[in-house]
Amino acid sequence: MLVVMQPHAGQPEIDAVIEKIRSLGLTAHPIPGAQRVAIGITGNKGGLEPELFTTLPGVADAIRVSQPFKLVSREVKEEDTVIDVGGVPLGGTALAVMAGPCSVESRGQLLEAAHAVKAAGARFLRGGAFKPRTSPYEFQGLGEEGLKLLAAAREETGLKVVTEVMDVEHLDMVADYADVLQIGARNMQNYSLLRQLGRVRRPILLKRGPSATIKEWLMAAEYVVSEGNYQVALCERGIRTFETMTRNTLDLNAVPILKALTHLPVIVDPSHGIGLRAHVPAMARAGIAAGADGIIVEVHPRPEKALSDGQQSLTPAEFDELMRQVRVIAGAVGRGV
Amino acid sequence: MLVVMQPHAGQPEIDAVIEKIRSLGLTAHPIPGAQRVAIGITGNKGGLEPELFTTLPGVADAIRVSQPFKLVSREVKEEDTVIDVGGVPLGGTALAVMAGPCSVESRGQLLEAAHAVKAAGARFLRGGAFKPRTSPYEFQGLGEEGLKLLAAAREETGLKVVTEVMDVEHLDMVADYADVLQIGARNMQNYSLLRQLGRVRRPILLKRGPSATIKEWLMAAEYVVSEGNYQVALCERGIRTFETMTRNTLDLNAVPILKALTHLPVIVDPSHGIGLRAHVPAMARAGIAAGADGIIVEVHPRPEKALSDGQQSLTPAEFDELMRQVRVIAGAVGRGV
Amino acid sequence: MLVVMQPHAGQPEIDAVIEKIRSLGLTAHPIPGAQRVAIGITGNKGGLEPELFTTLPGVADAIRVSQPFKLVSREVKEEDTVIDVGGVPLGGTALAVMAGPCSVESRGQLLEAAHAVKAAGARFLRGGAFKPRTSPYEFQGLGEEGLKLLAAAREETGLKVVTEVMDVEHLDMVADYADVLQIGARNMQNYSLLRQLGRVRRPILLKRGPSATIKEWLMAAEYVVSEGNYQVALCERGIRTFETMTRNTLDLNAVPILKALTHLPVIVDPSHGIGLRAHVPAMARAGIAAGADGIIVEVHPRPEKALSDGQQSLTPAEFDELMRQVRVIAGAVGRGV
Amino acid sequence: MLVVMQPHAGQPEIDAVIEKIRSLGLTAHPIPGAQRVAIGITGNKGGLEPELFTTLPGVADAIRVSQPFKLVSREVKEEDTVIDVGGVPLGGTALAVMAGPCSVESRGQLLEAAHAVKAAGARFLRGGAFKPRTSPYEFQGLGEEGLKLLAAAREETGLKVVTEVMDVEHLDMVADYADVLQIGARNMQNYSLLRQLGRVRRPILLKRGPSATIKEWLMAAEYVVSEGNYQVALCERGIRTFETMTRNTLDLNAVPILKALTHLPVIVDPSHGIGLRAHVPAMARAGIAAGADGIIVEVHPRPEKALSDGQQSLTPAEFDELMRQVRVIAGAVGRGV
Repeated sequence: MLVVMQPHAGQPEIDAVIEKIRSLGLTAHPIPGAQRVAIGITGNKGGLEPELFTTLPGVADAIRVSQPFKLVSREVKEEDTVIDVGGVPLGGTALAVMAGPCSVESRGQLLEAAHAVKAAGARFLRGGAFKPRTSPYEFQGLGEEGLKLLAAAREETGLKVVTEVMDVEHLDMVADYADVLQIGARNMQNYSLLRQLGRVRRPILLKRGPSATIKEWLMAAEYVVSEGNYQVALCERGIRTFETMTRNTLDLNAVPILKALTHLPVIVDPSHGIGLRAHVPAMARAGIAAGADGIIVEVHPRPEKALSDGQQSLTPAEFDELMRQVRVIAGAVGRGV
Repeated sequence: MLVVMQPHAGQPEIDAVIEKIRSLGLTAHPIPGAQRVAIGITGNKGGLEPELFTTLPGVADAIRVSQPFKLVSREVKEEDTVIDVGGVPLGGTALAVMAGPCSVESRGQLLEAAHAVKAAGARFLRGGAFKPRTSPYEFQGLGEEGLKLLAAAREETGLKVVTEVMDVEHLDMVADYADVLQIGARNMQNYSLLRQLGRVRRPILLKRGPSATIKEWLMAAEYVVSEGNYQVALCERGIRTFETMTRNTLDLNAVPILKALTHLPVIVDPSHGIGLRAHVPAMARAGIAAGADGIIVEVHPRPEKALSDGQQSLTPAEFDELMRQVRVIAGAVGRGV
Repeated sequence: MLVVMQPHAGQPEIDAVIEKIRSLGLTAHPIPGAQRVAIGITGNKGGLEPELFTTLPGVADAIRVSQPFKLVSREVKEEDTVIDVGGVPLGGTALAVMAGPCSVESRGQLLEAAHAVKAAGARFLRGGAFKPRTSPYEFQGLGEEGLKLLAAAREETGLKVVTEVMDVEHLDMVADYADVLQIGARNMQNYSLLRQLGRVRRPILLKRGPSATIKEWLMAAEYVVSEGNYQVALCERGIRTFETMTRNTLDLNAVPILKALTHLPVIVDPSHGIGLRAHVPAMARAGIAAGADGIIVEVHPRPEKALSDGQQSLTPAEFDELMRQVRVIAGAVGRGV
Repeated sequence: MLVVMQPHAGQPEIDAVIEKIRSLGLTAHPIPGAQRVAIGITGNKGGLEPELFTTLPGVADAIRVSQPFKLVSREVKEEDTVIDVGGVPLGGTALAVMAGPCSVESRGQLLEAAHAVKAAGARFLRGGAFKPRTSPYEFQGLGEEGLKLLAAAREETGLKVVTEVMDVEHLDMVADYADVLQIGARNMQNYSLLRQLGRVRRPILLKRGPSATIKEWLMAAEYVVSEGNYQVALCERGIRTFETMTRNTLDLNAVPILKALTHLPVIVDPSHGIGLRAHVPAMARAGIAAGADGIIVEVHPRPEKALSDGQQSLTPAEFDELMRQVRVIAGAVGRGV
């Protein structure tokens, strides 16, 4: 249930509603909005009577939320969430462009990539320091050394750092260096990790699991938000299907569906979504045309020498050309970069 | 194998190559191109020696085709196929826009839809007279009566008619009325039908099977082309996956992949691809941004009363608004409507 | 709706019910049972009032059928359908064992296979004369010549012939030679063909489409039955999933589900279901343990020389060994061979 | 690469091989076998020369391992792994039968279930204390209180306890109470957790991820084994497909494939595999007929009141009946219970 306060309601009236919710053994989630405050209620088994709340002073309405995801739902918060990443918006009319190498490999590689993607127009630098790999014998990332290089690249370029956190053990460490914490597809339903992410003060980029339904994905976001961290963006990166010519099947249907169901920003990852360098630009364009709030693209100075994902990484020149196309499409759908 | 003739090669030299191919027990497929003629060879079990042909007069080269699909491959024909549908191009820089009701229901319904989609900018009218339905007890289409209404709508509006043929029995009848023969998703691997389609002089719109790989789809097109009908366009309409919020998963990855692998035009069907009226425009935009040569969209004067697919049909006003968006995106990728 | 007659009801009372149904513009489907006759009604849009029929003489009950498939449903016919294939049962407690080569290749190959599978205990000979192939350039079967060889093998061995019919054009020809008409997976939703199958007097083996849901499969069977041919058996042959180590994913879940939902016999095809010779026996055993009414297995005298499906065909010796295992498992679930 | 020692080779010769491996910067994994010791080598990028090892004393052979999974491969260890769970075998000819409630709910519920499944013939008690749930608002398990109840049930019945560990944080706690640590499907590629599991001295039951290929699953097991814990069993519990009538699609193809590729035991979970109580027995039978080394089945004293998975839990009486069937099928494939 969602309790919507009147525009002029003050803190004492809000506090009274929260107190009422707690007295019922339930959890209150105050959600500040542009016009007025709303308070989500979770923890109830069955339905609640609206009259429990509408009779309190300052309350405009009490609305039943029909979806199993509550706090991430548009029913609960109508306006788009725009996450403020140290001054750079994630969500809203300006497209968020994230780019950089799959793995941080060396200072030279990372800085070259960072300068290139910044020059092309990206405002976020992606790069993996902890890498989930199918085989235990493959390169697993540079670890903290990689995080330090990312921080150094931020220092030099002003780009915001997006990097993956794989487990609770390294959460504080990664949060110390990163601006946005990426949760990989295979961890989308790692509920222990999701709960902890709800307790850090860092924006989260939650990738869709390869076989997760849209509903399950929203429920995963709900885990984070229900613990108090509202700064969550969703990243469509392709699902697993029977098609073998492409690495994944980029499910762009998810973009308009999500934009209707949730207020959270939606990012598209065309690199993993198709997995073939030559076709990444087409899918980046398509993602933006479908209504995404941004893209995340793998860029490597020398893809043929990359320690991971070389086959789907753009060169700096290809990324620069992609950004030209992105600007045109963004303009066509009323967006800027 | 593909025998490429020299630009100045004349008919006698072409005939000599064809004769040579036949003398080996193989099949020759002459493919006229802008600059020169090429001759595809099929029917061989193992590889052929290029010298069998390069020693003949007028032959520029003899190339092994690496893909299992031969005549539909870009290796065999580099330039885009543009199908001439009675003066209206299908393929090439002008987007082909096809629109109309799922089923032809009545004269009034069809003409209202036809006038509306024409006014909005479509040049093809879609509408089903023979409907493949999951249940034998559901509306199966008006049959020949529906075809007559389609022909009447063409008469009145000048739109080209796209309609489905479900079987060989009705092939001649449908071909008499239609400008483009649509093959439904569930018939994509109906090889007996495909072979017969290769023998008619009508353009074919071949929908992707719900669980067909891109390679299988190209092989299905190869069935048609290998029988002599080169006028084939491919239509991505969504594949079957685990996601249940959408009717199908529109696989836009297929668009750039196909444009690289084949010279045939590629059309996107956002209506079946997502199955939800509110989100059809987003997916139409995305399809064009991904590089499609056109779209096919369900439009019904009163979707809430449609005998089939009402939940995914646009109203004329919604289609008109979509066409405005399509023009902008088309311009952004160097296309016109 | 299903009208159930009283056990002692006679033809005049049955005819009166049928007449009543017709007078309402609906279709009557009399279904003889062991104890009494039932009459299925199709063609109604909304629900019918039971009183329309329960007030007629000889009527015991009128029951609403909740499933979209009607005549194939257990609600309409409780006891198992046992198809009589010229004296050999398909369905019921005796397992139906069908075996033979993927394609009929030659008289010698076919007879060798036929004698071997008979000796091992099979009572049906499978073999394809018309072969749906992904590529137009692959072996397409011997056609009528293959059918003649199948008939000759029946003559010599007494085995019943199961062979595929691919289209309406060849339906009469195939029906002339075959005892059971197989419908391939890619034709499962070829509704024009299904309707015609409803009009022939031959048992049908309807393979599941590679991406067909169980419900769609039952609806396909309903197409055949609603036209008057009740002799339909269903064949699970694997569905398409993301797994690539096996040719298909044999969905044995479908076996108990189908046995609960329908009275039609259920056959399992372990050869296509896993696609690897070494593992066909395990999946045949599993299919029977899951409750299947029979199996269909590819057997070739020399799999390594087979023109199709050699990688999944058993040798006669392997099939003989499989039959020993089948007998043991069959006994464990109260079946005989 | 795998170095196979001669049967009579002693510890000094084994140590010399290990030393040689380490001197190359690689990792040695000694694998004791019935006849002789083998030593797996991992950590090499390219291929190694067999002569590096075959020239050492006591070495019989040095074999390249062709699969990306090494230590779990049959190439490396031919005989079946039989895990000794405190005197009860997991793997080998005796079927391992695990049964019990989805969630531990109360002392009474658990003990009633435990006594019932023991009486029916199970030797392992399953029950969840930490429950991964799609929604953060659903019952998440009793936590340590549940573990204590499981230990008490072991005390009373002698059954071995199988229970899920969801994260590294609770690993030591769960390992203190459990005999077998279950890794849930959604954690199959939680590599941080897998690595830690490699360092505990507890058998692991590794469930297949809902969209994991067989190869990815074996690589996940390799993560555990490569850290030193060889006591890993694999559990097939169904994959995600397009079929919606069943909760998952139980992929029994995986059973014979795994038995050929790996020496690890393979368990089948028919409860999650089909998700419908009435059909769990059929799939349990099928799993054993396919060659599984055991089954894990949800049993609840009152399924209709279960806090989770009631729709797929057997009653004690149904489980008892299932065990009768299991014994018969087990006998038919040369197994005991």
